[in-house]
Amino acid sequence: MPPETEPRSPACRADAEALDRDDPLAPLRDAFSLPDGLVYLDGNSLGACPKRTAARVAETIGREWAHDLITSWNRAGWIDLAARIGDGIATLVGAGPGEISVGDSTSVNLYKVLHVACAMQAADRPGRRTIVSERGNFPTDLYIAESIARSFGLELLLVETNGGAGDDAAIEAALDERLSVLMLTHVDYRSGRMLDMTALTRKGHDAGGLAVWDLAHSAGAVPVDLHGAGADFAVGCGYKYLNGGPGAPAFVWAHPMHPERMDRDGTAQPLSGWLGHGSPFTFTPDYRPAAGIARFVSGTPPILAMRALECGVSVFADAEALGGMAALRAKSLALTACFLDRVEASCPGVRSVTPRDPAMRGSQASLAHDDGYAVMQALIDRGVVGDFRAGDDAAGTPNLLRFGFTPLYTRFVDAWDAAEALTDVLASGVWREPRYAKRAAVT
Amino acid sequence: MPPETEPRSPACRADAEALDRDDPLAPLRDAFSLPDGLVYLDGNSLGACPKRTAARVAETIGREWAHDLITSWNRAGWIDLAARIGDGIATLVGAGPGEISVGDSTSVNLYKVLHVACAMQAADRPGRRTIVSERGNFPTDLYIAESIARSFGLELLLVETNGGAGDDAAIEAALDERLSVLMLTHVDYRSGRMLDMTALTRKGHDAGGLAVWDLAHSAGAVPVDLHGAGADFAVGCGYKYLNGGPGAPAFVWAHPMHPERMDRDGTAQPLSGWLGHGSPFTFTPDYRPAAGIARFVSGTPPILAMRALECGVSVFADAEALGGMAALRAKSLALTACFLDRVEASCPGVRSVTPRDPAMRGSQASLAHDDGYAVMQALIDRGVVGDFRAGDDAAGTPNLLRFGFTPLYTRFVDAWDAAEALTDVLASGVWREPRYAKRAAVT
Repeated sequence: MPPETEPRSPACRADAEALDRDDPLAPLRDAFSLPDGLVYLDGNSLGACPKRTAARVAETIGREWAHDLITSWNRAGWIDLAARIGDGIATLVGAGPGEISVGDSTSVNLYKVLHVACAMQAADRPGRRTIVSERGNFPTDLYIAESIARSFGLELLLVETNGGAGDDAAIEAALDERLSVLMLTHVDYRSGRMLDMTALTRKGHDAGGLAVWDLAHSAGAVPVDLHGAGADFAVGCGYKYLNGGPGAPAFVWAHPMHPERMDRDGTAQPLSGWLGHGSPFTFTPDYRPAAGIARFVSGTPPILAMRALECGVSVFADAEALGGMAALRAKSLALTACFLDRVEASCPGVRSVTPRDPAMRGSQASLAHDDGYAVMQALIDRGVVGDFRAGDDAAGTPNLLRFGFTPLYTRFVDAWDAAEALTDVLASGVWREPRYAKRAAVT
Repeated sequence: MPPETEPRSPACRADAEALDRDDPLAPLRDAFSLPDGLVYLDGNSLGACPKRTAARVAETIGREWAHDLITSWNRAGWIDLAARIGDGIATLVGAGPGEISVGDSTSVNLYKVLHVACAMQAADRPGRRTIVSERGNFPTDLYIAESIARSFGLELLLVETNGGAGDDAAIEAALDERLSVLMLTHVDYRSGRMLDMTALTRKGHDAGGLAVWDLAHSAGAVPVDLHGAGADFAVGCGYKYLNGGPGAPAFVWAHPMHPERMDRDGTAQPLSGWLGHGSPFTFTPDYRPAAGIARFVSGTPPILAMRALECGVSVFADAEALGGMAALRAKSLALTACFLDRVEASCPGVRSVTPRDPAMRGSQASLAHDDGYAVMQALIDRGVVGDFRAGDDAAGTPNLLRFGFTPLYTRFVDAWDAAEALTDVLASGVWREPRYAKRAAVT
């Protein structure tokens, strides 16, 4: 992969239109169903709906379930969905075929791999004391790590980072002879800051630890090379950049050496359900894990949701002919740069917390603003949808406006128009109107 | 509830037709999409598809996801689905409103409650040594219990039962001062034998244990009274008698005293994901569980699959006006009796392993036959769909033909025709033809 560089940003809307005309990935937008006139920049929370999904799920309900009933486990390949979707995701994250399984939630999958990693370390390096992560990591990761740390009698050591430059160094400093498992999210959900997976994994290994990566904001958004980075385990989300639908099943990856080792010494994944058994349909009372990653399957996966995720992942196969992840990454960086350049030029009241260094930037842009909630509501009223994440006074983190730039369907004019709308909302002060002040239960 | 009695069985097909004409629940069949001419008796494995599901899921994809996008978490009530569906299921199993949550698989939910039960017992009765179950319990339950037993240093004590009369007594005999947790499946997946939940729970409590019940083959199939039985925890399946679709999310129940106790002493459920947090959208780094059963939620649930399950559960609300679970139970017993009476009269080569005592019978009928696989294939060729479960020579269990009788959509003529088809298959010996001998990967 060539070194990542900042592209030229458009100086006017006509420039943005020209970039869209020249964009080899532009045809992919037509694969999505997006409301007319809406600038949707919340694909980092819930990805847009591929047009193919409705018909495919309807077929799964009407033909496969209602008509073919139980025979669809074989005839429609339901039984292979976890592996088949996993193979599609594998091409996006530098994993091999047969190395990824799909099902359960990110939280549940994280529990499985963190449990296995800690069990391996307890056997190999019994004196290890810490699971290291960031205090700013997505909460579910921390809650699951808290649970695992309690089970294994470990300490959850949370590094104080700020979602920007310097985070890699701060994390590295916490990697010492106490390390059992390093558990990190590659791209920060608040700031969009991307960690150096290769360097941190190596430092973790140097310290005698194992490295578990959460790719929730990476898979389908930025290039990931799990094998190249030497990672041990990874999990990721199906409903963000993979466009699998609300609450889509998540995925789980283990370096192939780990299932092999589990075969040798009997290390088991804790959620040892029947469908991860080596011969699930023999219904034997003793658990004997399936080979490879398939052992990380627990119960029966939700087939309707799996079908929708399969549709989302299949769009990336279409993107392959247009340049694949390298092209998507170039466009993503250009989109966030376009947006941030324009905001910096015309919105003096906000400050980007997203690193400008392309090597440290995911596929989103986040802006600090004390009244971010009201500003976002005013933006949504103008047809620009991002989201709001409240800061934490105790941690000194600011209120944030988040804008996700999914390169599959976001246009340069969307980035331009979003910046213009924000400029207008801030300059006019319209966000101060009382109607924008009330918070909904879910934001 | 009046004592359960055996109904009069039809003596000819016209009798069966008359029973259907007189059946107050007959209109409910029209709520399901079933292939013409098929006698579907595999709803104990995959329930049939309600007609309403296709349109509702299509709306969830087309309007709620594709058009309303992230706003649907509030506007379409996605955020409340787990609790709302849970309230629907609660009416079927004797639980109160707000006591059941929906999401994850049965295996994953069983892990949560078994972990909590063992943690409570470790605190209250630290000398306890055993998780007691049946060797014939559904394998996923045993695999999960094996995992939990390993984590807590307990022994998984498996009672040798035979899926028939005498099982309750055999289990009771294993409940002694070593008992930590009694984990049982109410209705056996092989024989359809139903345990006495009230008596076994009381015996478990008398021995100082907690009682965890798997309602996979009970919820929607037989009346369950969790509070009346004094049960501690329960889990159940969404894709069998609840007709939620392939791999539909499962449910989890805890007696309300247990979450209250967890609040007092800090006992946590292990899969402490972000959506089970008390304030998930404040994104705080420390886990603080939601009140009540909501703490058993882990990650984001698969909304498309949740919608389909909501549709399946909603059919039971329609059944309420026609007599509800009591009427469904009476019909279920009449259906299985009709089938078994006819089989006993006309199929000398098979033996029912399903108890004839109505108090011990779930909603299925299982027949032992050495060549059950081939017999079932020949039956399926004649439009009668049940399934086959291989026996275990080591355990002395027979090969089984299983027939599920879902009272929501199964007719008396279906039971009659299935018995006639079986009579024909066995009398003709057609099942010996080579084409019926080959086994598919999933049976």
